[in-house]
Amino acid sequence: MSEVGADCPLCRDDGGLLLWRGRDWRVVRALGAEVAEAPAWYRVIATDHVAEWSDLPPAAQADAMAIVTAVERAVRRTLQPTKVNLAALGNVVPHLHWHVIARFDWDSRFPAPVWDAPRRSADGTRLAALRAALPACDAAIVEALTPRASAHP
Amino acid sequence: MSEVGADCPLCRDDGGLLLWRGRDWRVVRALGAEVAEAPAWYRVIATDHVAEWSDLPPAAQADAMAIVTAVERAVRRTLQPTKVNLAALGNVVPHLHWHVIARFDWDSRFPAPVWDAPRRSADGTRLAALRAALPACDAAIVEALTPRASAHP
Repeated sequence: MSEVGADCPLCRDDGGLLLWRGRDWRVVRALGAEVAEAPAWYRVIATDHVAEWSDLPPAAQADAMAIVTAVERAVRRTLQPTKVNLAALGNVVPHLHWHVIARFDWDSRFPAPVWDAPRRSADGTRLAALRAALPACDAAIVEALTPRASAHP
Repeated sequence: MSEVGADCPLCRDDGGLLLWRGRDWRVVRALGAEVAEAPAWYRVIATDHVAEWSDLPPAAQADAMAIVTAVERAVRRTLQPTKVNLAALGNVVPHLHWHVIARFDWDSRFPAPVWDAPRRSADGTRLAALRAALPACDAAIVEALTPRASAHP
């Protein structure tokens, strides 16, 4: 795998706060306005510019889901979300990336998907507490994945 | 795995048009108003009432993604979508299920997620053509998965 997409933002940039980079996948925490009301939003992003999940060979799929699972476990352990949401959409940026999003029953869109309209006002106090917990979650993700780095130097 | 959730609609019902049922997973095509403007919407549903992806052992995860991949390949081959969307959300029904949704650049929400507000009117002619193609897609999914049935009698 070594393709690069012209003008693809995920080929050009990390796509968020870089937490871990392996040979075929990296993990970032999403930043910016898009995640203002769901800040515990991580992405597992393919190194190569491949669009569809079923284009990956089984070993690359297994690698991806092991990383997604490790991120989800770190999120659950450190943030105790009501639910974790996983998605690979790619309609806007057709470069394979898994969203791993911690959802809370108090968040402004729950139980709707994060892409739906808000159902209630953002709870600033709880959002601030969640944001304060993100560095611990980031660290748990890095710790969970670091042994993998040495397997893919 | 043998849990059943009280009052869980995916424990009680198939959750759509049943296409294939294995020991641990089944595949349905979603029906009804929710999918009126994105009718090529399939679900890979766990038999057991488990909520989170990371609760599954690796073998069950691998089984799920092999089925998701087979469904995605059948969708791509028979419907030639612009993009396939995969998601496991479960905020409303916390019983693990993967959405596999064919998206088209003409569909009413593209490139937004199917859960976002429509961006344009539904194209009745193209939707009718897509609906007419669904039985062929259903059949391709059944054909792709049928060898698995005998592996899990």
